[in-house]
Amino acid sequence: MALESNSDTTLFGVCLIVAYEGTDFAGYQLQPAQRTVQGELERACAILAGHPVRVRAAGRTDAGVHALSQIVAFDSAREIASRGWLLGLNRHLPPDLRVQRAVPCTAGYHPRFESLEKTYRYVLTLGVAQNPLLRHRAYQLGKVESLDVERMREAARMLTGTCDYRAFRSVDDKRENTIRTLYSIDVHERHDGDPKQIAFDVRGTAFMKNMVRILAGTLVDVGRGRLPLSRVPSLLGPAADRDDAGQTAPAQGLTLMNVTLGRRCPSPFLIS
Amino acid sequence: MALESNSDTTLFGVCLIVAYEGTDFAGYQLQPAQRTVQGELERACAILAGHPVRVRAAGRTDAGVHALSQIVAFDSAREIASRGWLLGLNRHLPPDLRVQRAVPCTAGYHPRFESLEKTYRYVLTLGVAQNPLLRHRAYQLGKVESLDVERMREAARMLTGTCDYRAFRSVDDKRENTIRTLYSIDVHERHDGDPKQIAFDVRGTAFMKNMVRILAGTLVDVGRGRLPLSRVPSLLGPAADRDDAGQTAPAQGLTLMNVTLGRRCPSPFLIS
Repeated sequence: MALESNSDTTLFGVCLIVAYEGTDFAGYQLQPAQRTVQGELERACAILAGHPVRVRAAGRTDAGVHALSQIVAFDSAREIASRGWLLGLNRHLPPDLRVQRAVPCTAGYHPRFESLEKTYRYVLTLGVAQNPLLRHRAYQLGKVESLDVERMREAARMLTGTCDYRAFRSVDDKRENTIRTLYSIDVHERHDGDPKQIAFDVRGTAFMKNMVRILAGTLVDVGRGRLPLSRVPSLLGPAADRDDAGQTAPAQGLTLMNVTLGRRCPSPFLIS
Repeated sequence: MALESNSDTTLFGVCLIVAYEGTDFAGYQLQPAQRTVQGELERACAILAGHPVRVRAAGRTDAGVHALSQIVAFDSAREIASRGWLLGLNRHLPPDLRVQRAVPCTAGYHPRFESLEKTYRYVLTLGVAQNPLLRHRAYQLGKVESLDVERMREAARMLTGTCDYRAFRSVDDKRENTIRTLYSIDVHERHDGDPKQIAFDVRGTAFMKNMVRILAGTLVDVGRGRLPLSRVPSLLGPAADRDDAGQTAPAQGLTLMNVTLGRRCPSPFLIS
């Protein structure tokens, strides 16, 4: 459907940082008859490029999951300056999806293969009443008898490293290799707001389906005392099972915060 | 329409802290055939009380303006425990409006007459691209050549005190007394986000229609250099005119953060 790179046409690669509110999208990935981030991006890119466009992303996000810095790339037969892409695409995109930056890249560039590291944030709130201003942005746990944040921090440390995370993926994720590296899971508390907010910042090389949401659900179980710290190490490794880990925490609490690209990344994205 | 206090029935006063996302409301105040915060509250209260209910608020908010801590009170002929009001009302309210707290108060208690102080926050963002996650929560100024935050702070100091704020009210606000006291206007910068955010926290005794939004528009004019600091003092006083001050900044940037009630307030709300 998109232009083939073996055609005679010269192709111009374009790389974008995009942000979206996931609430009204059926996820990132293209699906027939559904409103998806990829679908909206490809529709807008095609208008400017003048031909069908296939957009390649650094990673997929589920329905309801947000992104502040998703990275996508595509090829265009029409040469347009970066500022033209930025302003032109934003004119054709819906208000819950916006290009934040555009830069030229090599034609065929695939952000997923160049992604070194991603950071996700999972936000939850505590309190008997829901905060309507956070209803699409946080998992509102409701009234919880007690949540031991220090114990959650301890579990978070145990769950980092290069490990077999097979217990932390959706049962319909069938990938063979379930070894991933998580550099850190930081647990932040915000006391200034009412209700109280807790955020997990998860930084790692690559993620499986629902991985951050299952990590969040597991940390909540540890905090509430439903899962003893002594059992956390057994959640990692080839013998662990999806049922051992906690529930998949709801999508609306999750935001893709950042993607770090490797050396071949378009230079204005380089983070020193 | 609501029960009269001179009827034979004993009335029980109830005071609520409510939070709402203003996006899909035609403002706080009841209007025929419009979705309003007051209308939704009165509908839910009537279901639980078993009779029509009139709700009295600490202040009105415009269409699109949010609240984290609006205070309302009403009278009920049915005695219900505070926890029953909290949980029961939240079952009947839409997800963009939630009771945060409920406490008993004197029948006939009116939060507006007992309000000593209110705090509003106005949030704006800078940057060529809009952040879709903030589209209902901030005034996204777009790309601005330069915005001098120190000059805005200086103007904010000039605009506090007990002054005639007649230039800072909507032309359709016809109140005679235009003297108000603003205790402080704090200008905060957030550099950690992209786009950069600026927030004004405005604390004062009472506010006229659009007052915070006109203050915000005026501070933006000062920051952009469109209004010299030397002209700011002339915006206050009986000779000033609505046209002298800046534009009314958009509603979605504004949130009612806090209402401080006086000595007669329901005790659990007392802030020492």
